[in-house]
Amino acid sequence: MARVAIYGASGYTGLELLKLLARHPHAQVTALLTRQDEAPHLSEIHPQLTGSFDLRLENLSVDQVAERADVAFTCLPHAASAEVCADLLSRGVKVVDLSADYRLGDAGTYQQWYGHEHPDAARLGKTPYGLPELFREQIIGADLIANPGCYPTSAILALTPLLRAGLIEREGIVVDSKSGVSGAGRTPKLLTHYPECNESFSAYGVGTHRHMPEIDRVLSMASDQSKASHKAIEVLFTPHLVPMDRGILSTIYATPKGDATPASVMAALKEAYANEPFVSAVEAPPATKHVAHTNRCHVYGTVVRGKVLLVSVIDNLIKGASGAAVQNFNLMCGFDETTALR
Amino acid sequence: MARVAIYGASGYTGLELLKLLARHPHAQVTALLTRQDEAPHLSEIHPQLTGSFDLRLENLSVDQVAERADVAFTCLPHAASAEVCADLLSRGVKVVDLSADYRLGDAGTYQQWYGHEHPDAARLGKTPYGLPELFREQIIGADLIANPGCYPTSAILALTPLLRAGLIEREGIVVDSKSGVSGAGRTPKLLTHYPECNESFSAYGVGTHRHMPEIDRVLSMASDQSKASHKAIEVLFTPHLVPMDRGILSTIYATPKGDATPASVMAALKEAYANEPFVSAVEAPPATKHVAHTNRCHVYGTVVRGKVLLVSVIDNLIKGASGAAVQNFNLMCGFDETTALR
Amino acid sequence: MARVAIYGASGYTGLELLKLLARHPHAQVTALLTRQDEAPHLSEIHPQLTGSFDLRLENLSVDQVAERADVAFTCLPHAASAEVCADLLSRGVKVVDLSADYRLGDAGTYQQWYGHEHPDAARLGKTPYGLPELFREQIIGADLIANPGCYPTSAILALTPLLRAGLIEREGIVVDSKSGVSGAGRTPKLLTHYPECNESFSAYGVGTHRHMPEIDRVLSMASDQSKASHKAIEVLFTPHLVPMDRGILSTIYATPKGDATPASVMAALKEAYANEPFVSAVEAPPATKHVAHTNRCHVYGTVVRGKVLLVSVIDNLIKGASGAAVQNFNLMCGFDETTALR
Amino acid sequence: MARVAIYGASGYTGLELLKLLARHPHAQVTALLTRQDEAPHLSEIHPQLTGSFDLRLENLSVDQVAERADVAFTCLPHAASAEVCADLLSRGVKVVDLSADYRLGDAGTYQQWYGHEHPDAARLGKTPYGLPELFREQIIGADLIANPGCYPTSAILALTPLLRAGLIEREGIVVDSKSGVSGAGRTPKLLTHYPECNESFSAYGVGTHRHMPEIDRVLSMASDQSKASHKAIEVLFTPHLVPMDRGILSTIYATPKGDATPASVMAALKEAYANEPFVSAVEAPPATKHVAHTNRCHVYGTVVRGKVLLVSVIDNLIKGASGAAVQNFNLMCGFDETTALR
Repeated sequence: MARVAIYGASGYTGLELLKLLARHPHAQVTALLTRQDEAPHLSEIHPQLTGSFDLRLENLSVDQVAERADVAFTCLPHAASAEVCADLLSRGVKVVDLSADYRLGDAGTYQQWYGHEHPDAARLGKTPYGLPELFREQIIGADLIANPGCYPTSAILALTPLLRAGLIEREGIVVDSKSGVSGAGRTPKLLTHYPECNESFSAYGVGTHRHMPEIDRVLSMASDQSKASHKAIEVLFTPHLVPMDRGILSTIYATPKGDATPASVMAALKEAYANEPFVSAVEAPPATKHVAHTNRCHVYGTVVRGKVLLVSVIDNLIKGASGAAVQNFNLMCGFDETTALR
Repeated sequence: MARVAIYGASGYTGLELLKLLARHPHAQVTALLTRQDEAPHLSEIHPQLTGSFDLRLENLSVDQVAERADVAFTCLPHAASAEVCADLLSRGVKVVDLSADYRLGDAGTYQQWYGHEHPDAARLGKTPYGLPELFREQIIGADLIANPGCYPTSAILALTPLLRAGLIEREGIVVDSKSGVSGAGRTPKLLTHYPECNESFSAYGVGTHRHMPEIDRVLSMASDQSKASHKAIEVLFTPHLVPMDRGILSTIYATPKGDATPASVMAALKEAYANEPFVSAVEAPPATKHVAHTNRCHVYGTVVRGKVLLVSVIDNLIKGASGAAVQNFNLMCGFDETTALR
Repeated sequence: MARVAIYGASGYTGLELLKLLARHPHAQVTALLTRQDEAPHLSEIHPQLTGSFDLRLENLSVDQVAERADVAFTCLPHAASAEVCADLLSRGVKVVDLSADYRLGDAGTYQQWYGHEHPDAARLGKTPYGLPELFREQIIGADLIANPGCYPTSAILALTPLLRAGLIEREGIVVDSKSGVSGAGRTPKLLTHYPECNESFSAYGVGTHRHMPEIDRVLSMASDQSKASHKAIEVLFTPHLVPMDRGILSTIYATPKGDATPASVMAALKEAYANEPFVSAVEAPPATKHVAHTNRCHVYGTVVRGKVLLVSVIDNLIKGASGAAVQNFNLMCGFDETTALR
Repeated sequence: MARVAIYGASGYTGLELLKLLARHPHAQVTALLTRQDEAPHLSEIHPQLTGSFDLRLENLSVDQVAERADVAFTCLPHAASAEVCADLLSRGVKVVDLSADYRLGDAGTYQQWYGHEHPDAARLGKTPYGLPELFREQIIGADLIANPGCYPTSAILALTPLLRAGLIEREGIVVDSKSGVSGAGRTPKLLTHYPECNESFSAYGVGTHRHMPEIDRVLSMASDQSKASHKAIEVLFTPHLVPMDRGILSTIYATPKGDATPASVMAALKEAYANEPFVSAVEAPPATKHVAHTNRCHVYGTVVRGKVLLVSVIDNLIKGASGAAVQNFNLMCGFDETTALR
């Protein structure tokens, strides 16, 4: 049994994490952290959890958390998260960090995209990236995991098998992604006010979204196992907002290479994921609803008019956040990887 | 040609009003008021109006407004609105007040439901209620109109013909109403944050919604033309939030009286609205989509298991707000009542 | 371990049932029935189940099913369902019937509302109604269960405690219900074509919906444990269609009796469900999203303007159909009632 | 005054057309055609038009239509439409064809993509393509107009100015488009059944959508005014289904050429549409809601990571169908181009 603390339980990733942990036979949630002094009952924050947990949010010190918990999940804003992670790790608490803080490889890139200095830069580049399908060996038994971003998960799972199989060029990749609104978090804003984004579809963060360097780095790393010194991958990533709660679909365009045909593209995807419990290569373009409320990813590929075209779908809150976090937690703690995720 | 000023143009009723006025051959929008000092262009606030108006919001004094405008529409919060209305009226500017400030009949009821003293109490009870189907004669040529609430419009248009025809009792009326989210305004709040209210349906304001006394008062007034001293009507009103942008449907239950049959109920509705351009009695229960983006109201009635059951639908932003406001404006100014509203 | 067959697996209740059974440690799905001769793989019918079951739909005889399965779930249209149920029971297969066939008490009422003779009338009135919160003792170990309708579940769970506590009158109950679109099934129709029902809200089946006599019967039965010969309950039930996938909210109006106050109403609800794993009395009007994707029901009650007002919410496909079916299955087979439902 | 007949009035483009014509001071709708013998009132087919038209659908011969109408709009399936168009033209009735029948340039391409012989092949390649922003001179006074497809409108309006300005290459253009569900028509199908496509996002018609050759042809034609013999443009077009009623957003990726910078790209768009009443170059990526329920198109362009990136939005039913049809009708008949469209 692992005792679990959660920082940032009041948001959507916190909610999904708690729903999954409620079903986990080897996890016991012992602390829900808040920086406020009121201590609301969890069911006031998330009426969905009425009857599932009899817990209040608490304003505890890191020392108090370390006494109560073996593992912590941090669902905090970037920078704030790394500070807490460093403190927890120094007290022997394992951490799955759902923020972006440990996903990039170096302090310079972090500063460039996040606009401030990294509070725990020494761990950058050394923390496993929590995509078990690509980095399982590094995750098993680790103390700290950088839980992947939602868009990157959808892009990386689709592209890596084709890069590894030499079926697409490393240059000129376009990732056109579409996400449900829960990806924008739980803080009310005009952009995500219901009558603004309902019945509407828009692009946002054109050329500036922070998941772009994350995709670059992980694709470069995952596709280049020989660590040969060729140029890092740079994708053009465009996120869009879909009027639905959850789900990401990425449509990806890449330049074919070698023997890229519809059949060889599908074969590469199938082979890569033949033994993966949560990723399937599917024969027709998938819909986000096929994987909503699951930890699964469906990927599809073909060749059209001189381009390799890939489509991948995930639930942004589960495989794109809290489900992946539980999958990583299982690997870190030695539980069956699929526990609570089927 | 009437020169028009709008207070509170940045919200949804402001937007709909501007869309309607853009088509109005006898209205010229000359001032859009704001209390901030930046003067954003209207198309920054409402990209929907790109190309329709070349206007900026301005922070003008009431004197300045009085120089530029013959009529003002006030889409301000209650209390703030009445203060502005009084100032405008004293300078000879006609006003359609879209706030709730002049809808109730007396200062005591206002204070009870709105929680503060009325800033212009002398006009309470004397200002025409802007439902032309019931009070057209009072509206024509008036200087100030209390533009009706959205829920009250849907309830009053359905119930009044039956009360007048003596087909329902005045006691025990239940109004179960359902509204799209735009009715909650444009200020972001958790309740109307997309992932909270999308794919969800809820009741709110149970027993406490301020449209309840408005329905009481107007029904009492409209149904009792002899002003006999019998007891005022008190309805039980329950609003609900529907995951859609716009539209109100009210399902209404009343105790039959006299010769109430499905046929006589429909006949009373048809007769009442036979010559109305915007209200139709329809033969089957209507959907909100039948009247979305229009100034129309559809009403349906029958008798089921010992109750008269009525269903009415409107677009909450048009017949329930800005369309009614233009209808009132037309009557105040002597234009054809349907101008810009077909 | 119970071996399970499913009739009608291609609809939405079939899908939800399979999702739940995929997590059930004591159920093994051994047959999915179809009347067509193609034998599509389950993941073609429901891409959501890719990787969960490696099964094809099959056109099997009842004898073949009886060899493979201990329990069958029937998600068939009425009449068709009762025919299959009778055949299965005669071969020793236990049945949870998700159709309406065994929910009413007598053949005459059935004929009146369903328009044809009942194919297995002898079992009417003797089959337990599968609402464990009210009829648990009859369900345990039974061979056939009439799984409740979705709307009736929401109404009956809210009303029964108040009828039993003598806090509301049996006459004049109004049940104003709102359901997500999945309640209308998976067969494409104009009414449920996306651009027709999206962004719209409507009443339907006014005075004619078949769940009305079901609510009447079960409320009469559940509230009148002394079987005194007083008049049966007749509710006025109005269903509405909400533009969302799933969820039912019922707003219920009843005439207070005895000591009905907001406090006593809530107390009666709390007491009734204090030990129930899936029903909670909640302190504020609930939203359907609070129980979406769960087997839970939240109920709320108060008194407003001379009426007892109740609000209850369920997921129509889970507590209103497939979750209740699994709950009944657990009780019939002697498993823990909450297995696969937490 | 032009007398107008409509073929296929019962679908969504028919509905939008009628809404626009209801406001048109110079159009009088005199015939609504159906091939069935029942003659339903228009308000039974479209309750939205209650009170707007007192017309029934009729099964009339082309001769009868020619007596009643000066202009016909055909909202029929392909092939069926061309047959009617030819018959109408031979009787002197002008036609705006909303089907795809006259959009392609030659009979071979038509046969390849539509799978049957063209019934009126002689008019292919000679019929003006009804995008006034590009082909106004040809439309004025024409007898037959090929009304553009919705996706092509969004792609062509964005791309043509850049092709003409020499800022993008003709090769390697990717058009990633997203459409609301009304684009799929009014016939119920599983794909557009509410619980299937709501809360879901999917790609469809990957590599096979019939709007792809239409975009190819019109871009080639519009961008190559010298008719030099260089290679025709071939775009990679991927349509997606968005859970909303209406709106198309196209995200377009092209290879920069010459002096392509964010500023020069925007400048080319602004210059192209400076005098157009319905197309605006906007400074930030637009949302479909900015143009919903209007005849407008907003386009935005920039350069990101070595690609020119364009975003355009339209209402698929208005600028993408019925609004464009009215715009063409105005030009054909000599009315002000913007009549009924502001």
